[in-house]
Amino acid sequence: MHLPLFLAALAPVSPDGALYLWIAIGVALVALAFAFFLARGVIASDAGTADMQVISNAIREGAEAFLKRQYQTIGAIALVLAVVVFAGYRLSPRTAPFAIKTVVSFLAGAVCSGLAGFTGMYCSIRANIRAAAAARTSLDRALKMALRGGAVTGLVVVALSLLGVASLFLIFGGLQNPQAVPYQLVGFGFGASLVALFAQLGGGIYTKAADVGADLVGKVEAGIPEDDPRNPAVIADLVGDNVGDCAGRGADIFESTAAENVGAMILGAALYPVFGLRGILFPLIILAINLMASIVGVLVVNTNEKEDPMRALNRGFYVTSALALLGFAAAVYGMLNGPGVQPLWLLGCGVIGLITAFLFVWITQYYTEARYRPVQSIVKASLTGPATNIISGLAVGMETPAMPVAAICAALLLSYYFGVQGLAGVSDVSSYAKGIYGTAIATMGMLSCAAYILAMDTFGPITDNAGGIIEMSNQPEAVRDRTDKLDSAGNTTKALTKGYAVGSASLAAFLLFSAYLEEIRSIVDQKINAAGAAGFMPHGWTFTDINLAEVPVFAGALLGAMLTYLFSSLAIKAVGRTAQMVVQDVRDQFRENPGIMAGTSKPDYARCVNIVTGAALKEMVVPGLLVVGLPVAVGLISRNFSPSYQAVAAILDAGKAITVPAINGVPVNLAGAKAVAGLLMVGTIAGVLLAMLMNNGGGAWDNAKKYIETGQYGGKRSEAHKAAVVGDTVGDPFKDTAGPSLHVLIKLLATITLVLAPLFV
Amino acid sequence: MHLPLFLAALAPVSPDGALYLWIAIGVALVALAFAFFLARGVIASDAGTADMQVISNAIREGAEAFLKRQYQTIGAIALVLAVVVFAGYRLSPRTAPFAIKTVVSFLAGAVCSGLAGFTGMYCSIRANIRAAAAARTSLDRALKMALRGGAVTGLVVVALSLLGVASLFLIFGGLQNPQAVPYQLVGFGFGASLVALFAQLGGGIYTKAADVGADLVGKVEAGIPEDDPRNPAVIADLVGDNVGDCAGRGADIFESTAAENVGAMILGAALYPVFGLRGILFPLIILAINLMASIVGVLVVNTNEKEDPMRALNRGFYVTSALALLGFAAAVYGMLNGPGVQPLWLLGCGVIGLITAFLFVWITQYYTEARYRPVQSIVKASLTGPATNIISGLAVGMETPAMPVAAICAALLLSYYFGVQGLAGVSDVSSYAKGIYGTAIATMGMLSCAAYILAMDTFGPITDNAGGIIEMSNQPEAVRDRTDKLDSAGNTTKALTKGYAVGSASLAAFLLFSAYLEEIRSIVDQKINAAGAAGFMPHGWTFTDINLAEVPVFAGALLGAMLTYLFSSLAIKAVGRTAQMVVQDVRDQFRENPGIMAGTSKPDYARCVNIVTGAALKEMVVPGLLVVGLPVAVGLISRNFSPSYQAVAAILDAGKAITVPAINGVPVNLAGAKAVAGLLMVGTIAGVLLAMLMNNGGGAWDNAKKYIETGQYGGKRSEAHKAAVVGDTVGDPFKDTAGPSLHVLIKLLATITLVLAPLFV
Repeated sequence: MHLPLFLAALAPVSPDGALYLWIAIGVALVALAFAFFLARGVIASDAGTADMQVISNAIREGAEAFLKRQYQTIGAIALVLAVVVFAGYRLSPRTAPFAIKTVVSFLAGAVCSGLAGFTGMYCSIRANIRAAAAARTSLDRALKMALRGGAVTGLVVVALSLLGVASLFLIFGGLQNPQAVPYQLVGFGFGASLVALFAQLGGGIYTKAADVGADLVGKVEAGIPEDDPRNPAVIADLVGDNVGDCAGRGADIFESTAAENVGAMILGAALYPVFGLRGILFPLIILAINLMASIVGVLVVNTNEKEDPMRALNRGFYVTSALALLGFAAAVYGMLNGPGVQPLWLLGCGVIGLITAFLFVWITQYYTEARYRPVQSIVKASLTGPATNIISGLAVGMETPAMPVAAICAALLLSYYFGVQGLAGVSDVSSYAKGIYGTAIATMGMLSCAAYILAMDTFGPITDNAGGIIEMSNQPEAVRDRTDKLDSAGNTTKALTKGYAVGSASLAAFLLFSAYLEEIRSIVDQKINAAGAAGFMPHGWTFTDINLAEVPVFAGALLGAMLTYLFSSLAIKAVGRTAQMVVQDVRDQFRENPGIMAGTSKPDYARCVNIVTGAALKEMVVPGLLVVGLPVAVGLISRNFSPSYQAVAAILDAGKAITVPAINGVPVNLAGAKAVAGLLMVGTIAGVLLAMLMNNGGGAWDNAKKYIETGQYGGKRSEAHKAAVVGDTVGDPFKDTAGPSLHVLIKLLATITLVLAPLFV
Repeated sequence: MHLPLFLAALAPVSPDGALYLWIAIGVALVALAFAFFLARGVIASDAGTADMQVISNAIREGAEAFLKRQYQTIGAIALVLAVVVFAGYRLSPRTAPFAIKTVVSFLAGAVCSGLAGFTGMYCSIRANIRAAAAARTSLDRALKMALRGGAVTGLVVVALSLLGVASLFLIFGGLQNPQAVPYQLVGFGFGASLVALFAQLGGGIYTKAADVGADLVGKVEAGIPEDDPRNPAVIADLVGDNVGDCAGRGADIFESTAAENVGAMILGAALYPVFGLRGILFPLIILAINLMASIVGVLVVNTNEKEDPMRALNRGFYVTSALALLGFAAAVYGMLNGPGVQPLWLLGCGVIGLITAFLFVWITQYYTEARYRPVQSIVKASLTGPATNIISGLAVGMETPAMPVAAICAALLLSYYFGVQGLAGVSDVSSYAKGIYGTAIATMGMLSCAAYILAMDTFGPITDNAGGIIEMSNQPEAVRDRTDKLDSAGNTTKALTKGYAVGSASLAAFLLFSAYLEEIRSIVDQKINAAGAAGFMPHGWTFTDINLAEVPVFAGALLGAMLTYLFSSLAIKAVGRTAQMVVQDVRDQFRENPGIMAGTSKPDYARCVNIVTGAALKEMVVPGLLVVGLPVAVGLISRNFSPSYQAVAAILDAGKAITVPAINGVPVNLAGAKAVAGLLMVGTIAGVLLAMLMNNGGGAWDNAKKYIETGQYGGKRSEAHKAAVVGDTVGDPFKDTAGPSLHVLIKLLATITLVLAPLFV
């Protein structure tokens, strides 16, 4: 629809630095090609015995059916929102010209996110049976199969995010108008967030409802082991691992990279006088380096029968990190250089980000692995029953934010300082903009291994499924040992990535705050300029007056924090209701067909899958719309009815000096923008802490149970084990539904406020 | 030490409105006399049989021993802090003149709070046996005995708070220098908060450790009923009700009234041009009205054998509210009047506060009473075991902040608007100051029944103890029925007051934010004035630039939110550890003396009481010091090392317009003040939500268990009941230790930042 613009972009204009855009696009295409090559390799491998294929096919059909119906629901919601955004932008003559661009980038973000999720899962649910088949001969081959299957997700997610942002930048004329176009890309992040929220929430409800339901009715009522083929919910449980952990986390990281990308470009635009186009394109190049480093990291991983698979995966991670760091240094020296710039300080910001990523992973390990104090305290508390198990698990969960918060504060303060130092010789840019760009570089550093980490994460559900297939098809002990080893490594990687995801969400959120404030400044600037002589803009004005002691801001902040609690409550209740439906169906199946328990006839797996699918998708709508609706309502209501607007007007009426942007002596109404800022910032802080509590508390409960199952304190079937199972069940919706959905919620708040910012001023 | 000042205050200067100060002091003294009269009446009553006295004496001795040791610990901490505050103030010549006044008011606040707590408990632990004795003849007499015993606490707490603030105002020369003296009273609030934090935390740890410990070992291991005299921990349990619920909540409300009083006086000082001295003294008169209305409310309560005691208590509450409203109206029309003022709007603010109090009580009832959906959902979830009980209880807890947050937002927005309207005709005062004073009036409205509500609250532990005494001394069934009825009403009042306490904490916190910002403005003003010609103050400057997108502010905010989680975690773990010591001691006693279980010899109650006392006091120190230390550390570190200071300096160096207060062209360093503001505000929001989750979640679990015990879903000893007991045990440290301590933490953050504000600039 903007064909002339597109052609203009391809025309041989080549401002300084335009080459980097083409490099980014090229690398994204290469990475996609490599992912295709990996996927073909995986799919061409041995797909195991007929027994195994029956199970694998059932998982595949269930997962694909879920995804299809999920995308239909999300698509419908996205279309409605696209119309709303379009209409909102068209309302005012000032925003009307951007309506189409915003909607196009919104839809592009949504489609790319969906595509990434679908491709990743397409490959994962085919990799699981190949990993299972490979485990019959060699641990190394099984490990590689699972990791490469996971790498498809990692690469496709990051590459599509990069490709989407880079192409839109090109198409919207970023090479001609580099300072304005980043603001027009915010829709891409919003589209990605929207899909991510529903993917993570729907998938999270599905996976835990199936898991809790299968456990409750299988282990507890019928007394059959986990993954027993007689349990009608067992396929739904395996499907859940794919749609929750795999498609959900993929959408989460897609959103992180997309939002961080756009936010960093907006902050780069503020430094245009220093770095020119290169400062804006820098985040794209970092993602490109991320892709190349991760490809190498995946290829170097190999192991032998003796080694702990986790060591092999970590080797790949270290290689990736080292390469990413080298690339980062090259990019900093190549792109962020110029008169008065000291690139070493800026590289330091990137290193801070990488170190923060490591710290988050270590802290997560400390809180969730059985050899440290926190899990041991839960184990000991299990000896006095379920109540003390729960109390100590919640106490551990509430303790967990302390160290990560200290790490985030240190990372932000240091990278801010490094940014100011690195650009100290540059004039005409405020120290604030310099420091904030430093924190943005740190965020890019933290995300600079995202593709590899996502590959490790997707490794989790693949090995989990491989283990399930091996278990259900009655393979020999040696094969089971291999898949058990892989499964255990997969559980670790899943827990670590959650720590990484929440850490990157908090850093990215800070970046996105800053982008929001910068966007409001830019909107006010346009508004004043449009007013001509009647407009007044104080020299050097920035939008920084987010005072929580103003009533609408405080109300916004309270509502933002409350939103995270209410959302979590709705998500957890949704799991409970959906799990009840699973329990009911399994009971019905056992009653209707006694042959199931006898082992003479097969349960109707598909029926159970269908029930969970329908229920999970229905349940995700209300909390999802709440998250979308609340910031919009707060912004619009405050903008139109807020007393703080009158307050400022009255100060001016009294004849005092004007220190705020004004048109005809009336200050620009910032009440809506301020209230939304309060909601965004405090909602983010509350969400980050609650997510840490839930992720780490849930992980600690899980591993306390597993520790007892290794035979400690009486082992399986002891009273302590029963107590630990209670804790594990409580932790399930925490760590796999509400917690991960909160990461996404945080970023959705940021992207929705970026997209709708023009409506709040 | 300031004798001349004191004499000057008594000299016949009588500025307009000084009479109100004498009225406030007079009413406080009358209320204290009336409390003495009530206490004498209670103590002169029949003290029951010798059997009953043995138990009552054991409770009394335990409670007094705990309180004595607790006050020693708190006293030592307070003295150390007094030295620190004194030294801090003496460091700078600007603050040195206020060092003595601040320390004096700090110690006065601490001593008054301690005195109020001691007096209240002195009477409560004597009222319990009198209420038990009265229950042998009449429900009406027992109800009155318990309520009047509670009223002593309520009246002493509010009267001492009023007397302390009013006397200090007088002694510090408030009648001569009314605009400056309110700032010198902030130490009073800090002293009160400090005692309250340790009283609530130590008492909360004590009460729940004894309760959980006694339950675990008694009910679960030995199979003996609650309050069975063979359980060595049973006296410790009854002592706990006094030291936690009674002394702890008393200190909490003392602090609320003291902090709200001082905060409202500071905001009143900002409106000095409009109302003069009367605007500053208005909060004192509202407390005086509160005392008179509550005295009448207590006196009108009576009941008969048939009536639900809750109805009788509510009648008293309605009478108190109606009288308070009348008094409020009279005070508004008498004191807040003048040219351009429309008192009806201001009265509206007070009405909003009263309505908010009612709303909080209703919402608390909805979430914690068995007849509504939330508790019923927990009851139903108990049918599928402890895990689902816990999940649904946590889901209810996370849902609970939604409605109260909506109520707070509405109350703040409306009262702000009413304030602006009511003072619309007044010039020379910003709309912001007008609106904020409106919210302050609403807060006073909410607290205008505090003394009666505190009486109802203290009614709870008195009736609980009375029930225990009756149970342990084997009284007839009819007597038990009476105390059961009273006990059940007491449980309700305890739950409702917690809702009220958190509601008033959140409104008061907003008031205290505003006071903090106003204080910083005043400190900067003094600093600029002291600099003479070198100082530059922009016209109409106020301290409003608390931007969460600045790194130190964001770090402060994150740390503030994290503090509430870490504090709760420490408190809950302390309960667990202390409870383990109780369990151990009971097991030891059963083993050492088999005659205990046989009923032939008496357990050593005092030994168990001593163990809990020592452990609870030891455990309260670390979390308490964390709360005191963190804001101080954030303020001082940010002030001295913050990059944002350099940032502002750099903006100015670039030759742009100065819009901030500066001395010799260098802006005043506000980095510390800003970071602390972030910590205070976001810490408050996080704390309020977490407290609601814990209070209401805990209350809902408790009542779900009680509902099943009425015979529903299998009644006592069914599987559902076992599951519900798990939830109740988890909820105990939530609702009685961490939750109530969080209310106090919120206010402590506010008062400590007010006291130390001069050190942060």
